[in-house]
Amino acid sequence: MIKIAIAGATGYTGSELLRILYHHPEASVIRITSEGRAGSHITEIFPEFRDLYDLTLEPFRGDTFLKDVDLVFLALPHGESMKIVPRIVNDSIRIIDLSADFRLHQGDLYLQWYHREHTNPDCLDDWIYGLPELHREKIREARYIANPGCYPTGALLGISPLIQKGMVNLQEMIFDAKSGVTGSGKSPKAHLHFPEANEALMAYRIGEHQHTPEIEQEIAQQAGEKVTINFTPHLIPMNRGVYNTIYAPLVQQVSTKDLLGIYQTFYGAEPFVRVLPAGSVPNTKQVRGTNYCDIGLKVDPRTGRVIVTSAIDNLIKGAAGQAVQNMNLMMGFNETVGLQFPALTP
Amino acid sequence: MIKIAIAGATGYTGSELLRILYHHPEASVIRITSEGRAGSHITEIFPEFRDLYDLTLEPFRGDTFLKDVDLVFLALPHGESMKIVPRIVNDSIRIIDLSADFRLHQGDLYLQWYHREHTNPDCLDDWIYGLPELHREKIREARYIANPGCYPTGALLGISPLIQKGMVNLQEMIFDAKSGVTGSGKSPKAHLHFPEANEALMAYRIGEHQHTPEIEQEIAQQAGEKVTINFTPHLIPMNRGVYNTIYAPLVQQVSTKDLLGIYQTFYGAEPFVRVLPAGSVPNTKQVRGTNYCDIGLKVDPRTGRVIVTSAIDNLIKGAAGQAVQNMNLMMGFNETVGLQFPALTP
Amino acid sequence: MIKIAIAGATGYTGSELLRILYHHPEASVIRITSEGRAGSHITEIFPEFRDLYDLTLEPFRGDTFLKDVDLVFLALPHGESMKIVPRIVNDSIRIIDLSADFRLHQGDLYLQWYHREHTNPDCLDDWIYGLPELHREKIREARYIANPGCYPTGALLGISPLIQKGMVNLQEMIFDAKSGVTGSGKSPKAHLHFPEANEALMAYRIGEHQHTPEIEQEIAQQAGEKVTINFTPHLIPMNRGVYNTIYAPLVQQVSTKDLLGIYQTFYGAEPFVRVLPAGSVPNTKQVRGTNYCDIGLKVDPRTGRVIVTSAIDNLIKGAAGQAVQNMNLMMGFNETVGLQFPALTP
Amino acid sequence: MIKIAIAGATGYTGSELLRILYHHPEASVIRITSEGRAGSHITEIFPEFRDLYDLTLEPFRGDTFLKDVDLVFLALPHGESMKIVPRIVNDSIRIIDLSADFRLHQGDLYLQWYHREHTNPDCLDDWIYGLPELHREKIREARYIANPGCYPTGALLGISPLIQKGMVNLQEMIFDAKSGVTGSGKSPKAHLHFPEANEALMAYRIGEHQHTPEIEQEIAQQAGEKVTINFTPHLIPMNRGVYNTIYAPLVQQVSTKDLLGIYQTFYGAEPFVRVLPAGSVPNTKQVRGTNYCDIGLKVDPRTGRVIVTSAIDNLIKGAAGQAVQNMNLMMGFNETVGLQFPALTP
Repeated sequence: MIKIAIAGATGYTGSELLRILYHHPEASVIRITSEGRAGSHITEIFPEFRDLYDLTLEPFRGDTFLKDVDLVFLALPHGESMKIVPRIVNDSIRIIDLSADFRLHQGDLYLQWYHREHTNPDCLDDWIYGLPELHREKIREARYIANPGCYPTGALLGISPLIQKGMVNLQEMIFDAKSGVTGSGKSPKAHLHFPEANEALMAYRIGEHQHTPEIEQEIAQQAGEKVTINFTPHLIPMNRGVYNTIYAPLVQQVSTKDLLGIYQTFYGAEPFVRVLPAGSVPNTKQVRGTNYCDIGLKVDPRTGRVIVTSAIDNLIKGAAGQAVQNMNLMMGFNETVGLQFPALTP
Repeated sequence: MIKIAIAGATGYTGSELLRILYHHPEASVIRITSEGRAGSHITEIFPEFRDLYDLTLEPFRGDTFLKDVDLVFLALPHGESMKIVPRIVNDSIRIIDLSADFRLHQGDLYLQWYHREHTNPDCLDDWIYGLPELHREKIREARYIANPGCYPTGALLGISPLIQKGMVNLQEMIFDAKSGVTGSGKSPKAHLHFPEANEALMAYRIGEHQHTPEIEQEIAQQAGEKVTINFTPHLIPMNRGVYNTIYAPLVQQVSTKDLLGIYQTFYGAEPFVRVLPAGSVPNTKQVRGTNYCDIGLKVDPRTGRVIVTSAIDNLIKGAAGQAVQNMNLMMGFNETVGLQFPALTP
Repeated sequence: MIKIAIAGATGYTGSELLRILYHHPEASVIRITSEGRAGSHITEIFPEFRDLYDLTLEPFRGDTFLKDVDLVFLALPHGESMKIVPRIVNDSIRIIDLSADFRLHQGDLYLQWYHREHTNPDCLDDWIYGLPELHREKIREARYIANPGCYPTGALLGISPLIQKGMVNLQEMIFDAKSGVTGSGKSPKAHLHFPEANEALMAYRIGEHQHTPEIEQEIAQQAGEKVTINFTPHLIPMNRGVYNTIYAPLVQQVSTKDLLGIYQTFYGAEPFVRVLPAGSVPNTKQVRGTNYCDIGLKVDPRTGRVIVTSAIDNLIKGAAGQAVQNMNLMMGFNETVGLQFPALTP
Repeated sequence: MIKIAIAGATGYTGSELLRILYHHPEASVIRITSEGRAGSHITEIFPEFRDLYDLTLEPFRGDTFLKDVDLVFLALPHGESMKIVPRIVNDSIRIIDLSADFRLHQGDLYLQWYHREHTNPDCLDDWIYGLPELHREKIREARYIANPGCYPTGALLGISPLIQKGMVNLQEMIFDAKSGVTGSGKSPKAHLHFPEANEALMAYRIGEHQHTPEIEQEIAQQAGEKVTINFTPHLIPMNRGVYNTIYAPLVQQVSTKDLLGIYQTFYGAEPFVRVLPAGSVPNTKQVRGTNYCDIGLKVDPRTGRVIVTSAIDNLIKGAAGQAVQNMNLMMGFNETVGLQFPALTP
């Protein structure tokens, strides 16, 4: 039984880690932190954990605090992880960061897309991008994992087989993405107030969303060349779910069936990717509460494009579930342990 | 490992049984039935079970069909269970019926409230009302369990301590209940069409709802006298959750704290009832996806009434979860096995 | 064409006044105020008014500011109206206050229920409670109108015929109320954040809600005696709508049909109350976007109680629409002018 | 005052026509038809019209039935209008068809996209495509109007300025569209049952949606050449709203500001199109309950594409509102009469 700390346990990814790890037979959460709510019992923040967890939030205090801890999840706002990581000097502690702070390998992209300087750009190469379907072997050996963003997880799982097989024009891909409101975090904001977000739909940060370079980086690495994409996120009146609708021009004539065959081979052994049969389309409800990514695709012979659709639960495969999947790999556990639950639907 | 059959696996309680039993270490579903969809693979009906279940729906064929089965859950529409039960003659098979067909001990109440004759009123005494918090010991010994309705579960757990302690006027109790739409089942109906049920709220079957005699029966049994209540259900635009707001005149002056003490004692050893501290109010989201019933209460000294509120997930503690809890008791398993999951929230 | 000012135009009742008055043939909004957003164009706050309104928010500056204004609506937070009213000395200006500051005739109730002293309790008698169905003639003559709360509007319209006809036990009435989230205002709060309020239901302020004395006052005035009620509000995951389910013990045996006859007579000439036929139940969606209050009722002969249900749009008949109805009465316009629109449903 | 008949008044476009025409000062609905519900009073189907309409549904009986009628709206299912139109021989009666039956000028496209033969392909040239922003003058003179589909309305208003100015590559345009559930009609269906559609999102009919050729036809007509697009609709858990996110490669370098200037000029005089300022993005809630189409755009210099977003209320500008706008033009009324209402938001 390994011992876990969660830094920043009061947000949605923090509570989702607690929820998932409750079931985990090999891991036990022993420390949870919060700066603003230190001293509070976890059930004051999350009454749903009554009778399930007896933990009190503490301020983060570095290594002393992490004595006996094997692995720490950083479920902090973007920009906070890079401040805290240098304070974890004990190198026997593994770190999985759920923020964006260590996902990009080029430090200058932080300034461009996040509008702040990375405080420690030299360390970026120490971090492995924690998408098991692309980087499983490196994750097994890693001490530091940068857990992927929710949009990139669905986007990359949707497009990677086409990239690796050289099936699509790399410079003409469009990712039209849709997210439930938990993707915007737990802090109340005017446009996320129930009556404002309910019965409403809008695009946001068109051409400027910070997940764009993350998607581009991981495609480029597979493609062996720089890639520029269009990525447009939309806010949807539901709690959970990220949907990617991907448009990519095919470089040769190919059928839906052929491409599905490529996907089935590519993901055949993957425990958390389900390639749907021809004619089926993913639906966020079928992955709600699960660590699955469901993928469908269709060739449109009229335009010569393939349209790939993928659905994940943004808080699970798009955050906490994938983090636990990474933990399993790092710790040598069975990759699926504690993660195989059917969707909570309806 | 016991072997399970589910009769009527295409509705919401059927799929919820499949979802919950997926996690159960001591039970395995080996047969599922449907008359209308016999021959279909379960993933054609519930694509969310892809990679998780490999079962095909069969028509119900009685004992031959149930060979090797230890326990059968009847997740059938009301009125169907009473037709099927006589066909299960092998008396080593235990039956848990999730319909209303065997909940009422008096056959004439079926005609009054369900508008149809019970076909086998003489057998009603063979059935135990499967609310473990009231009938645990009988459930352990039972062959036949009538699994409670969703509204009665929350209503009875909310009111029972007051009844047993003789704290309230038995003839003046009001149950104002609210339910998410899954409580009305999976069949599409005009008033449950998304644009009709969304952003809408209404009471229904005022003074005529079939759960009324079920609540009255179980209160009367505890009180030792006939009881007549007002019960009013409302349809709420959300998927899951049943909320009961109960008004009962106190027969003596008593404080909120005193009553909470009574509830804490009454439910102290119960694994699936959480009595909230003073000042806290249940919320359906804190029990979503769980087998918990959360209960809060407050004395209003101005009117001399206590207001008790209770929240459950109607598909779990109000149906499939409670059925598995009953199964655990009947089979001699630990009562909580396979049932302790934190709420999926948000 | 009269000239209107709206003080506090950035909240939901403010925008709803602007929306409704846009259609009004006899009134024109010429001034809108906000302290926090002074200087902003109204379309910065409410982009939906693009091309429809060209007004800029100003700080409230008393009579100078109100020069040329015939009537001012105060759409301010509770507690702010009582500060501003003394600054409106020009007694040709009529005032309709949508806050609670002048609804209660007894100043000490403010301390008890609103937890603050009323700064000007002596003036309370100058204000008319603006429920036209109860006080139409006084409203016509009034300079000052205290516009009713959303819960009291539905509660009082639901119960008043029974009170005036002496049909019910005055000390045993229970009002179980349900409200969409706009009833809690426009300020973002943790529990109103979309993922928290969506798919959730809870009671709140049980026995303590500030609308309780408002309902009691108006019932008492009709009954000629002090009345104490139970009032329990619930938060519902939808934008608009207030639903009251009222339980009242009948003092004599009477049929549903008889009582409906009483209601039809009582409300026969009312333009904005619709008494539904026997067997019909109000639904909030059928009044969404309208100034109607729909009322249904049913006698439960088993318990001797009548259950009355009423539905309103909390922002219209429960706030801005009723305010305009009051304006029409005060100014001698046809009471219904600018207010007769069918429901926006679905 | 002209006299109106609505054929097929029991669906969502039928009720929306009734709702909108209620306010219209120049038109009065005198006949409503339904085959399945003939004999029912309109308030049996739509209780929200109580006190507002006193009309009874009749079976359609052709010209006798239409005596005294000036204009008939056909709010029928696709395929039904083409059966009924030949029965309206009195050529003084104008017809606005809200189905798809007369939108496409080439009869063979019906077989390809609607999977049925057009019964009267020779008459297709008699019909004017009723998008006033593109065909206003022809509409004024028309007897027969084919009212546009909801998706095409938002798509065409979003893209037309770019087409007419020759700014984009015509063969590389992608329309990613999102619709509330009323876009799928009023008939209950399994996937539109509240618990199935709520908290869910999926694409559907990828590459096969019947609105594709309608969009292509109207673009081609403006461009002067055949055009092939990708169009992908998605089902969104909300009642109203259609959102189009359009990706088009620019044929020259141009700024967001320049393009907005083009749009502002193009739509400057249009009463129902609002071009949002730079940095603003349309939101369906800002057009809910209105006849507006809101349009925003942004050039992404990284990819050389412009992303145009447009939002409409699918039942108003996407159906009944546009139909009334067409009626106004045909009858020589002011185009905006009866159609200028602010959004019902929240």
